This record gives sequence, C-alpha cells and structure tokens, in this order.
Amino acid sequence: MPKIAVLPGDGIGQEIIPEALKVLDAVLKNSGEQFQFQEYLIGGAAIDARGKALPEDTLAACKEADAVLLGAIGGPKWDTLPAQERPELGGLLALRKELELYANIRPIKMMPSLISSSALKEEIVRNVDMVVIRELTGGLYFGEKGRKEHPKAAYDVLVYTEEEIRRIVEFAFVLAGQRRKKLCSVDKANVLESSRFWREIVLDLAPQYPEVEVSQMYVDNAAMQLVRYPEQFDVIVTENMFGDILTDLASMLGGSIGMLASASMSGKKGLYEPAHGSAPDIAGQNKANPLATILSAAMMLKWTFGLNKEGQLIEDAVTKVLDQGYRTADLGGDPGRILGTRQMGDAVVDAL
Amino acid sequence: MPKIAVLPGDGIGQEIIPEALKVLDAVLKNSGEQFQFQEYLIGGAAIDARGKALPEDTLAACKEADAVLLGAIGGPKWDTLPAQERPELGGLLALRKELELYANIRPIKMMPSLISSSALKEEIVRNVDMVVIRELTGGLYFGEKGRKEHPKAAYDVLVYTEEEIRRIVEFAFVLAGQRRKKLCSVDKANVLESSRFWREIVLDLAPQYPEVEVSQMYVDNAAMQLVRYPEQFDVIVTENMFGDILTDLASMLGGSIGMLASASMSGKKGLYEPAHGSAPDIAGQNKANPLATILSAAMMLKWTFGLNKEGQLIEDAVTKVLDQGYRTADLGGDPGRILGTRQMGDAVVDAL
Ligand SMILES: CC(C)[C@H](C(=O)O)[C@@H](O)C(=O)O
Ligand SMILES: CC(C)[C@H](C(=O)O)[C@@H](O)C(=O)O
Repeated sequence: MPKIAVLPGDGIGQEIIPEALKVLDAVLKNSGEQFQFQEYLIGGAAIDARGKALPEDTLAACKEADAVLLGAIGGPKWDTLPAQERPELGGLLALRKELELYANIRPIKMMPSLISSSALKEEIVRNVDMVVIRELTGGLYFGEKGRKEHPKAAYDVLVYTEEEIRRIVEFAFVLAGQRRKKLCSVDKANVLESSRFWREIVLDLAPQYPEVEVSQMYVDNAAMQLVRYPEQFDVIVTENMFGDILTDLASMLGGSIGMLASASMSGKKGLYEPAHGSAPDIAGQNKANPLATILSAAMMLKWTFGLNKEGQLIEDAVTKVLDQGYRTADLGGDPGRILGTRQMGDAVVDAL
Repeated sequence: MPKIAVLPGDGIGQEIIPEALKVLDAVLKNSGEQFQFQEYLIGGAAIDARGKALPEDTLAACKEADAVLLGAIGGPKWDTLPAQERPELGGLLALRKELELYANIRPIKMMPSLISSSALKEEIVRNVDMVVIRELTGGLYFGEKGRKEHPKAAYDVLVYTEEEIRRIVEFAFVLAGQRRKKLCSVDKANVLESSRFWREIVLDLAPQYPEVEVSQMYVDNAAMQLVRYPEQFDVIVTENMFGDILTDLASMLGGSIGMLASASMSGKKGLYEPAHGSAPDIAGQNKANPLATILSAAMMLKWTFGLNKEGQLIEDAVTKVLDQGYRTADLGGDPGRILGTRQMGDAVVDAL
C-alpha cells in the first residue's frame, strides 16, 4: 500500500492538515484507492517533544514514504534558538536536503471567483496561468555560511554545480513542453558568476527542446514584469533564493498566498505543502485557509501517484466552493459567507 | 563653482540626459546658481571609444566632482565581452564601488495623475509614499566570485562587514526620523547568516532612535506585502541584491519604472541616475521617458546642494505636466497626448 508521511508541524499546520486529510479520505473512498497515512513530528512541535526539529523517526519515515504531506513550521517560541536548530533550518530545510527535493513547483492560476479580491487590476490578472519552478536544494540556502573577525563580518556562499543546474533546468524544459511551451529562465547574469553559469547551461540544453521557446530575464526585471504583465509567463525556472522571492510575489497573482500549493520533487517522490507559513497570529482560532493544503494534496495525487482524475476532482471542488461565494477570512469577500477552517474543509468535501 | 560630471552612457541615456540638463539649466538660470557641467564617457560608449567601460579620466572627474549625473549603460553589443569588462560590472558597478556610494535611495510616490495607469488597483496604490534604501557597495555584487572544477561549479559570496551594515542602517534610521518614522528592515534571517548579522545590528542601533518604530520582515514576505498593502511602508532598508529586486518591483507602485529616480550617496556626494536601463529597443527614436532622469536631477539639487526650493520646483513641474495629461509612450494614457523625449523635456521647462 502506498505510504504517505503526514507532518502537521506548527501553528495553523495543526488545523489545515486535518482538512486536507478529510478531503483525501472522501475522494479516495469514492475511487477505491487505499493509502496508508501516518503522522510524524517536525519543526517546533518536534523540538518541544523530542529536542530536535527533525527527529530520526520522522526522517526515516519520510525517506520510506512515497509522499510527504506537510502543514507549516516555525513560530516565535523557537526564534531564539541557534539558527541551525530552529524549525526552518533544522527541520524543513534539512528535510528538503535529505530527500534531495531539488524541484519546487508552484502553479499560479487565477481562479475567476477570486479576481475581485486581487490587489491587481482585473485585466492584468484575469488570464494568469503559470508555474514557477524553483531550485530547492542549492544556492545561498545550503552554501557555507559563517562569521569572521577582523573585521567582524558574516557571509553566505551562493554555489551551484553544473549537475544541480542541469537537472532543474531539464525539469523545467520538460514541464514547459507539456504546457504552452514557453520557458523563462530568471537570473542576474549581469552581476553573478553563478548566474552566468546557469545561463550557459540553459543555452546548452535548449537545442534538445526545440519545441520550447526559451527566454532569459534578470531577476529585478522579472519581479517587475510579474506585476506589469504577468500573462506573458508560462513556466519560470530560477535558483533557490530568487525563487523564494518570486513565488511569494507571484502568489498575489492568484489572489492570496492562502491559495498557493506547492510540490517539491525528486523523481516521483514529493513533499507537498502550502507555500504559506505557520501564521502564529491566527493559530488555534479556526480561521486559517486550508485550501492551499487541500490543493497541495491534489498535486500529490497527480504528481506522485498519477491519479489525475482524483486530483482534478479536488481542484474542481475547490473551484466550486469559491464560485458559490464561500471564503476564508484572508480572501475577503461577502462577510456573510466567511467560513472557518473546518467549515471550509467540509464545504470542499460536500462539493466533491 | 560646484562641479557636476555628466555621464550619458548608452542607449536612451544619450537622449534623456540632454532633457535633464535642459531642465536644470532653466531652473538654475532663474535662481542665479552657477554650476559647471562636463560630459564624460562610461559604459559601452567608453568601451567603443577608449577600450574600457570606466576610463581613468571619467573616474578622476567623478571623484573630483560634487555630483555625478548618469543616464544608463549597457546593450546587446557589449554582452559578449567577458563579464568584468562589460558596461555593468566594468562601468557602473566599478564606479559605485570607487566612489563608495553605499546608500542607494529610491523614493516611490504615486503621482495622482498616474494612478489609472498602474497595474494595481487604485485603492491599493493611492497613498503610496515610501523610500527604499538599498545597500549598494557590498553583498553578492562585490564578494568573491568564480568557477571551480571537479565538480564543475560557479559561486558568488555574499559578505557584509559590521561597518558596512551599520552605516547603511544608520542612514535609514536618520531618514526615517525625518519622515513618518517607520523603518522596515528586510532580510532572510531564517536562512542567511549575513541576514542574522544584519538583524543584530538593527536591534543594536534601534535604542539610539527611540522615535523610529522599527520592524523586520523576510524578503519573500516583503515582495508580497509590497503588492498586497504597500501603504504600510515608510522607509525600507535592505542589502544590495534584495534591494535591486524590491526597488524594481516597487517602481510598479509609482506607475512605471520610467518615473523612478535614484540617488546613490556617500556623505553629501552623490550619483544620480534613473532606475531604469538603457532600453536598446527604443534608443534613438525619441520615445524614451526622460522624467526619471529629470527627477534624479531634482534629487541632486536637494541632496547634494541643499537647493530644496529648486529641486521642488522641478518636481512640481513634472507633476503639472502629468496633470495636464501629457505622457510618454511607456505611461499609456490618451494617445493624443503622447510626447516624445524632447517634447516631454520642453513641457517640463515650460511648466517651470
Ligand atoms: C520557511 C522558509 C525557510 C522557506 C524558504 O525560504 O524556503 C519558505 O519561505 C518557503 O518558501 O518555503
Ligand atoms: C545594471 C545593473 C548592474 C544594476 C544593478 O543590479 O544594480 C541595475 O539593475 C540597478 O538596479 O541599478
């Protein structure tokens, strides 16, 4: 039986994961598929219970599982720990690295019923439909870092091997080939040596994908173009830190970061998590938006298990609920149709 | 007599600088101030004429001058040169470093008459009025960079000394104190050691500026918040690369990057330039928007020469021309009121 390691984590992670499981349960019951779900600790919850952000049994279970479903990690309670022990570096980033989840995929598509709640004008975002592919296990995140004396300084190294760049760029070319066949590689090649290397590899691979039209854009311009004319993009591929910034920015094009699902892949194996954080300010209040997690679960069915029909059913159910005017608080809209976290999960199950 | 080194550079730089000089001439004639303007080569123009992007006499003149007024640099013609010799690294970045222009200031304010041409909804951008302070001579831009073999790789080092961080953060605190007294320091302290160092120094300096309310935000969140709710910001301070990305993004909040002026300071000495590039695609066609350069000249009068009244006169003249409905092509609007580069310069002079 396929295994799914479930990692609720911290803050609203504890509330949104149960909703995703509820939805998965409903859709799998209908289709007769059987999965084994098992929960494990990560992040602050793991620090409190077990003294470290990524306990051995969690890591072992994630390695063995076919897919990992994660909520969110971190919170002010653990922000005073040494950086390496905190939920972010010690938990999430360590897990991404250990599982070699080098390809982070964040699809951004405007849902028609959310257009009016966007910060951008309707004509700018109406037809947004793009995927950002972010390299997830290299660059500044994992390069050497430290302090120096005389003079006092701090440093982080941005480093990429050829192999690391090649595999993510290939991944992006393949995905672009399955979509509208437009790939935009984002870098800062007018300044960074790592970006120039990245650009060379993109140019080197391009002839193998003659059906894909490839362009290169500086990251500062890309940030601007995402706001100015986002419909120009189909697939964007970029390195870890630029991807971190651009995906959060791009989430605004889909209405809210509360809608942004993500998959982090290594072959068929994937970790699925909402792109948002643990939102300590609203944790435990039944206010969090579970839709990004529910949509991440749909991605899991499609990307890891090839259950395209079931994944699509979930996505359609989410669209339907939003079309009916239901919202969580973060999405704005008619105050009479604001649902709590659990009620939103129920609404998606009902719509299935 | 105060000296101004004028560096038109490449592409539209050759067209926008004459318009700024025309406007300066008009305003200074009225006020009786006398300046000495002298032109020098930089960027591709300097490579073509003199074999290098930053010739010695240009550098010497910029060092001696009280202020530098720059157009734009770069273009496809020089993109095949080794990176260190190109207009960007060899010209502009070398000049910033040689003059130690560590504080880059980009004010972003929505001009009421441009609101309708913004990609963002009117209620989101109506009251935008912020300044982004970007550290300009450190970080990834100037750290060691290179290639490695076995395995093949490329790297760039992000490094900041205590002194480099302290002076830019102090600069930002002082500026915030003269404005709405809100400072937001942007970093990625959950991942980068250099960001954690940055954060420590911000916290260390904060007690000296009790009137300034200081907050800290991760760069991914900042990119999102700039779109979601930009009015929350007064002064933002951040490191070089994050600042590069966030200012281009923020330029969208002021209507167009064609409106974004910038000052790069070291004490009173400053280099003033539009935030946009050399736009090779429209160069030589009398289409470029000269307003960012004209507004940069206004900043020069204020920041280097303390000529606040004269600087304000220019800014008011620009506002007046826009209020009359005149636009350059990049700003959209009524096709019957689109002006060329020279005509826009004339319109500002007329409005003075
Ligand atoms: C929590 C943080 C370390 C993480 C990142 O920067 O990768 C988050 O922002 C994300 O995008 O998944
Ligand atoms: C041309 C380029 C090197 C430069 C930079 O990245 O600093 C530009 O984008 C800017 O923002 O002034």
